[in-house]
Amino acid sequence: MSKTVDLNSDLGESFGAYKIGGDEQIIPLITTANLACGMHGGDPVVLRGAIDACIKNGVAIGAHPGYPDLQGFGRRAMALSADEADAYVSYQVAAVDGMTRAQGGRMTHVKLHGALYNRAGAEYGFARVICGGIARVSPDAVFLALSGSAMVKAGLDAGLRVAQEVFADRGYEDDGSLVARNKPGAMIHDEDEAVRRVVQMVRGGTVESVTGKTIAITADSICVHGDGAKALAFVERIRAALCEAGVGLKAFAESVASLARGVD
Amino acid sequence: MSKTVDLNSDLGESFGAYKIGGDEQIIPLITTANLACGMHGGDPVVLRGAIDACIKNGVAIGAHPGYPDLQGFGRRAMALSADEADAYVSYQVAAVDGMTRAQGGRMTHVKLHGALYNRAGAEYGFARVICGGIARVSPDAVFLALSGSAMVKAGLDAGLRVAQEVFADRGYEDDGSLVARNKPGAMIHDEDEAVRRVVQMVRGGTVESVTGKTIAITADSICVHGDGAKALAFVERIRAALCEAGVGLKAFAESVASLARGVD
Amino acid sequence: MSKTVDLNSDLGESFGAYKIGGDEQIIPLITTANLACGMHGGDPVVLRGAIDACIKNGVAIGAHPGYPDLQGFGRRAMALSADEADAYVSYQVAAVDGMTRAQGGRMTHVKLHGALYNRAGAEYGFARVICGGIARVSPDAVFLALSGSAMVKAGLDAGLRVAQEVFADRGYEDDGSLVARNKPGAMIHDEDEAVRRVVQMVRGGTVESVTGKTIAITADSICVHGDGAKALAFVERIRAALCEAGVGLKAFAESVASLARGVD
Amino acid sequence: MSKTVDLNSDLGESFGAYKIGGDEQIIPLITTANLACGMHGGDPVVLRGAIDACIKNGVAIGAHPGYPDLQGFGRRAMALSADEADAYVSYQVAAVDGMTRAQGGRMTHVKLHGALYNRAGAEYGFARVICGGIARVSPDAVFLALSGSAMVKAGLDAGLRVAQEVFADRGYEDDGSLVARNKPGAMIHDEDEAVRRVVQMVRGGTVESVTGKTIAITADSICVHGDGAKALAFVERIRAALCEAGVGLKAFAESVASLARGVD
Repeated sequence: MSKTVDLNSDLGESFGAYKIGGDEQIIPLITTANLACGMHGGDPVVLRGAIDACIKNGVAIGAHPGYPDLQGFGRRAMALSADEADAYVSYQVAAVDGMTRAQGGRMTHVKLHGALYNRAGAEYGFARVICGGIARVSPDAVFLALSGSAMVKAGLDAGLRVAQEVFADRGYEDDGSLVARNKPGAMIHDEDEAVRRVVQMVRGGTVESVTGKTIAITADSICVHGDGAKALAFVERIRAALCEAGVGLKAFAESVASLARGVD
Repeated sequence: MSKTVDLNSDLGESFGAYKIGGDEQIIPLITTANLACGMHGGDPVVLRGAIDACIKNGVAIGAHPGYPDLQGFGRRAMALSADEADAYVSYQVAAVDGMTRAQGGRMTHVKLHGALYNRAGAEYGFARVICGGIARVSPDAVFLALSGSAMVKAGLDAGLRVAQEVFADRGYEDDGSLVARNKPGAMIHDEDEAVRRVVQMVRGGTVESVTGKTIAITADSICVHGDGAKALAFVERIRAALCEAGVGLKAFAESVASLARGVD
Repeated sequence: MSKTVDLNSDLGESFGAYKIGGDEQIIPLITTANLACGMHGGDPVVLRGAIDACIKNGVAIGAHPGYPDLQGFGRRAMALSADEADAYVSYQVAAVDGMTRAQGGRMTHVKLHGALYNRAGAEYGFARVICGGIARVSPDAVFLALSGSAMVKAGLDAGLRVAQEVFADRGYEDDGSLVARNKPGAMIHDEDEAVRRVVQMVRGGTVESVTGKTIAITADSICVHGDGAKALAFVERIRAALCEAGVGLKAFAESVASLARGVD
Repeated sequence: MSKTVDLNSDLGESFGAYKIGGDEQIIPLITTANLACGMHGGDPVVLRGAIDACIKNGVAIGAHPGYPDLQGFGRRAMALSADEADAYVSYQVAAVDGMTRAQGGRMTHVKLHGALYNRAGAEYGFARVICGGIARVSPDAVFLALSGSAMVKAGLDAGLRVAQEVFADRGYEDDGSLVARNKPGAMIHDEDEAVRRVVQMVRGGTVESVTGKTIAITADSICVHGDGAKALAFVERIRAALCEAGVGLKAFAESVASLARGVD
């Protein structure tokens, strides 16, 4: 059986008259979309349109819940209790799940956004509560988590299937965590290098850490951005390199049998 | 078979630190709750708590979507297109539906709120688009509508089951519509009179209009308020009077077989 | 004394990560900016940046208050009482006034936004209450109103100085009001024609109505848009045509002595 | 000259239909009100009403800016940059300042709210940036700060006059900071003891710390709550005890000559 991988992108983040993201351009290039749910971005009209576009293009649809901070686009840490965060996430996942069914599709997964993603990746207890909520709202949803992070175990422990995502343009520590953005080596600026790393992560299951070690990494999906011509061209390069390396593109939601599933 | 009727109330309208409504006091007295969904009132933490309280008390749970105007509590008319309103309602219904299932319950119905309710009661086309959306999100939901209003036909035409609600303290025009609040006879201030009217509407299926005519009215449910000691005492009186008249209390959602259902 | 006119544009309407409008491109081409105040658009960080850009470019700064409806960008009518609208406008004007002084500038005027502008242009009583509030918050502010509308008298009656704006691309009825957008003749699509009309309104004080009559119109300012290359090129054309016609560009706030002032 | 002290309370925190706080009951008992500005609580209609009530009762009016988190009532820490926080505070202070002048009053001071107050009390650099903004918007405003906190120096260094507030019901560490709420001794539950401590802080300028040491404390103002009958009765007790001890009640804003002022 030939190797496949998923390309995911965060979409549906416009709000009313405010447009953000190149949804139309990126959708044809990816296999999985994570749709904003109305708290950090997105609104019901935008969400419905994004669902329709994904269905039309055969792209897998997931919920992309974030903090209730439109002004900060969900990127500012907020001191929420796990219980509050759980309620906010459950609400958003339920809304996307139901709206997607209403439009004739099926919500396949959940990926957290911004500061919520960062905290859940670092704090198992926090992530565990949230994953418990997701499992109650949508037991068949796959949890798309930062590869190797606390989210992976939290999702499995909540009984969810978990897919792991990697970044083409980010450096990794020896323990598989992302190099913090304010440290040297956080970003891979050389595009050739970034493309090579993606192929190595997907084909070889390893990546060279910031200290030069070869470490194991699980790459079920690659997160890509679609804002602007440069980002789109980079996605095209990744697609071409994967194709050349004999890696097909396929939504992870279509390969769920191959994903680990925890027992709650 | 003995006659039954439903008592419904709008709940779950608190927001963060802001408390509104006497949910704890009114829940034991009613059979059906309409829960705010986070736009005109309510938030995910409040919603989850209200769902749990309803499940515990055996009260039927419905979504109570409103306009996205927290500052105006959804009571101010907004010039939304039917398409926008449909998206907002679908989103809110989906959120309550999924959250309710996640807590182990089942969402039985939808009742619109405030200015959205008023417009849908008066404009068939607007109501029809919204009901189409509800039918896509939650085909088995009952649509709880103002008795005799444009909402009734809109719900039936969308293929929904429809239950009709009446008000104890409001006057009715000859055509069965509510007397506008700024006209004489809009409110029934005499409590004895109000209680008598409720019994007559439920038992007899008629009400005396503001001009003194006896007109037909469908009363599947009576809308009651639970804010403050006086309102609670009035609900107690209605309950006692119905009991004395041999009318049992039962959520309309448990009598769906007796509700009309349209064919979409 | 040579004739001058003002070019005004609505700016500072971005919100957090959401960018709207080409503020940087249009500011060098205009004499007056109307800054969003945080309700229909804008936020404190955006507002401060826009104030600084206007001060740097010598552009007059005004408040551009709108309805509290970010999702609808203040373009959807809302059934606010005049008293509510007055409080919302006073709050927004006070915020811009104080922020502008804090940055070393001076707020010269107020122009209403979107659905609020439309209603105030049509309803004298509503506009009068709002203008009374503006006069209390900022008695020296000029009120920038739709030429010939109910706002003009309302502003004067509240004791404010009033400047009147016209649109290059809109048709006018015989009574000087704008042709409604859903009627033939609402928009002037021919750019040459639009430029000719601007010069005629400014130099001649008249415009050809949709029925072909020559009617009087006061044009203290021309409202221009700066979104996109085409809009910017059109503003350049208007500037060139005015220059050729011997009309200088000058903020109306610098010509207040020539503006009518009412007595409250 | 006889000793006086100020009693301050946080008011105007209702939002639309949502009522919070017993403004009517507490206003006659205090000398200074800190009014919510529309971000963590309050709205323009509520603010205007609270300003009018303060003017009528001769109570000094201040702005009480908080984080843009209505859902969390400004009590949840948010990772804002000092620059963002400065813009948010400047905006809110400007709004209250202008609205107060419009109603015929004068804004005398600024007190931060909730999580913003807590962070500014602990982080000098953060507080300093915010105080710089306040000084630009309203140079004559007094900055009402937690006694002995980083806010005091930040306010003085920004050139503001600073008044210091104490709490009747909170324990103090040896260094004059508040005992954290999750530690023993955080709250003074005995009302007699609390009243004695207030008199001692005001008259003697000292307080017994949680370890039993007598430490110096500056008490220009006492913060009191007015929510509910018990809180109101406690304020009455404090007033009576101060009276008995020969301490008069007077807004600190009327004693500004006695307040320290920094030089920017």
